[in-house]
Amino acid sequence: MKKVAIVGGGASKCGRREASWRDLVQEAGKAMFENVGNISPKDVDSLIVGAAQPERFVFQAHVTPMVAECLGITPRKVAARTELMCASGQAAIRYAWACVGSGMADIAVVFGVEKMYMPDMTEAQTNMTCVLDREWDGVNGLSAPPFFAMTAQRHMLEFGTTKEQMALVSAKNHHYSTMNPAAHFQKEVTVEDVLKSIVISPPLNLFDCSSITDGAAGVILVPAEDAKKYTDTPMYIVGTGQASVGNVINNLANITEWVPLKMAVQETLRTANITRDEIDIAELHDCFTISEIMEYEAFGWCEKGSGGKFIENGEPHIGGKVAVNPRGGLLGCGHPLGATGILQALDIFQQFRGEVPQGRHVKGAEVAVAHNLSGAANVHSIIAYSRDLK
Amino acid sequence: MKKVAIVGGGASKCGRREASWRDLVQEAGKAMFENVGNISPKDVDSLIVGAAQPERFVFQAHVTPMVAECLGITPRKVAARTELMCASGQAAIRYAWACVGSGMADIAVVFGVEKMYMPDMTEAQTNMTCVLDREWDGVNGLSAPPFFAMTAQRHMLEFGTTKEQMALVSAKNHHYSTMNPAAHFQKEVTVEDVLKSIVISPPLNLFDCSSITDGAAGVILVPAEDAKKYTDTPMYIVGTGQASVGNVINNLANITEWVPLKMAVQETLRTANITRDEIDIAELHDCFTISEIMEYEAFGWCEKGSGGKFIENGEPHIGGKVAVNPRGGLLGCGHPLGATGILQALDIFQQFRGEVPQGRHVKGAEVAVAHNLSGAANVHSIIAYSRDLK
Repeated sequence: MKKVAIVGGGASKCGRREASWRDLVQEAGKAMFENVGNISPKDVDSLIVGAAQPERFVFQAHVTPMVAECLGITPRKVAARTELMCASGQAAIRYAWACVGSGMADIAVVFGVEKMYMPDMTEAQTNMTCVLDREWDGVNGLSAPPFFAMTAQRHMLEFGTTKEQMALVSAKNHHYSTMNPAAHFQKEVTVEDVLKSIVISPPLNLFDCSSITDGAAGVILVPAEDAKKYTDTPMYIVGTGQASVGNVINNLANITEWVPLKMAVQETLRTANITRDEIDIAELHDCFTISEIMEYEAFGWCEKGSGGKFIENGEPHIGGKVAVNPRGGLLGCGHPLGATGILQALDIFQQFRGEVPQGRHVKGAEVAVAHNLSGAANVHSIIAYSRDLK
Repeated sequence: MKKVAIVGGGASKCGRREASWRDLVQEAGKAMFENVGNISPKDVDSLIVGAAQPERFVFQAHVTPMVAECLGITPRKVAARTELMCASGQAAIRYAWACVGSGMADIAVVFGVEKMYMPDMTEAQTNMTCVLDREWDGVNGLSAPPFFAMTAQRHMLEFGTTKEQMALVSAKNHHYSTMNPAAHFQKEVTVEDVLKSIVISPPLNLFDCSSITDGAAGVILVPAEDAKKYTDTPMYIVGTGQASVGNVINNLANITEWVPLKMAVQETLRTANITRDEIDIAELHDCFTISEIMEYEAFGWCEKGSGGKFIENGEPHIGGKVAVNPRGGLLGCGHPLGATGILQALDIFQQFRGEVPQGRHVKGAEVAVAHNLSGAANVHSIIAYSRDLK
């Protein structure tokens, strides 16, 4: 398999946008092609779209050729959409990587987009109730917030994790997102703000939860050997891991130990030939504050159960053990499902190039990972990126 | 890129099934694993699901881990769903091929499923109105039947194609499907039956149109070098082509000349290193009778505009120039969107192994192609299969 690089990308502003699905695509597409000046839409031979639920949110299916037409691309090698719910964007990058790596494609655009805001937000919430197994879980009222709330309750019971520790995750990520103009949220959130915000599903309050957000983003993949034709500072894809165990919540062996994430971490370190201590930046899937705490543990940066202490000690801040979510995370940036994985990749690309504001820049970073989970945290996916080709 | 083979597969009965989405998956999965006796679900490291619209038809998103759980698979390399509407199944095969070919996966299941029948069929039809561009075409009442009806009208005007010629396509494919126990339809349909059936969108009558159908199917992909471990008679994937041009119907240069199909044909012949005359079996996307007529032309088996004459002369029958849709096609077998591409591959696999009834067996077939289109025929995708590795 050939080595693959990302040579450019762009994104729309994320938030509650008064913009159509098509508007978001065009805004991000324009930014992407402007970022890499010497690739035109006509040069692109493949397009992989990450999108989770356009059929429900905007009543539009068959979105791949729609994105192609909006961007002026006529895919002559590979064109398809990937869906892996909250991990749809990362799944799209992995697909494009397989295409370029295997030689099926030469210049591939990976594009993620989700338009989620609806005037009647109960309808948006209803759309999200079919993410878990409808026949066994959704029917019993289980959607993402109550599932992650149960996870948090159990983690608090087993390991003594506190609401204050969870709130620290939100405060950190909102702090970084104040320095990210593309982020949905631009305001500092204190621990007290999190604890005083309305209850969504106990023990999770409003600021423990990522948001319904509109957004789009794209990146361009080429064989690593060609990367320097397009930019002096490409980013290389150097490893990956993905694992999936179970689906119906009753069948999960243990909700406070994400076995597939541990498997994905091991496989990522193995394929990237790195240790966990070499990771400078980790864009982790903080759909809820408890998720990020469990991810510290699964990556092995702290002992099982001590994720709360890890954030209390400032370890996941810039300058700590590992910079977690210097982009602002899903909590600060919002979570436009299909776009999120692409937005993470794009921010890491900009980190390596020194194109992010100083207050959230991880100086000298060489290796980064991006992580997404989906469903009842039963599917986990990671990509490792590197500034240099090892 | 490594060569890749299909070593087994299975399908559910297709039709208006009193069965849930999950039931269909389990029925096809059981048949698949029984077909290849020495691969168990635990051996499978990757799963690609082809599904077009589960969010609307059965209000279920994030279907990949649901299929994995139903089949007893715990994907530890790659798991994702592909959507390319009517070509979703073939897109899934292409994705799995890239994964196995690039070394990202070793044993991959490709699984297609669609549950489409609804007690209120107007709701099913409504779901299909978001396939074309909703903002520019759907809003004006354009869905698949009127689009292909316009295509047929124009083809009749430009080339003198007749309703009787189109009806011959339906009669041929329904004839073959009488010998396919998995097919939705098991009855002979005469030219007269087609011409007398109710008008759907002029000039297309009921029997000119493929149907809303429930069904599921799966195949297993491994590196070609390992194939003989699992079966003496694998089938090899030897080439492919895909192209996509435009989306909104106003932007299509010409509705009676499918430029992306001609591009995909050329690329398939080039990558498979075959000529069109070496193709023994062609499973073509006969969503409507006019489609198959235009596909004869695009494959170059006859002159542009003479597709009607081609069927009139019996050329696409077994024993003619090329056996087109000896499975029974979408017209005879039904069109469970995400499953269709997999069902085509499975039938070719069974053709090569001599496991289909004599009346529709293409004896001595060595090379086959499967073709799918999607949307306003603006996306076309082809895979070439071979009995032997060249």
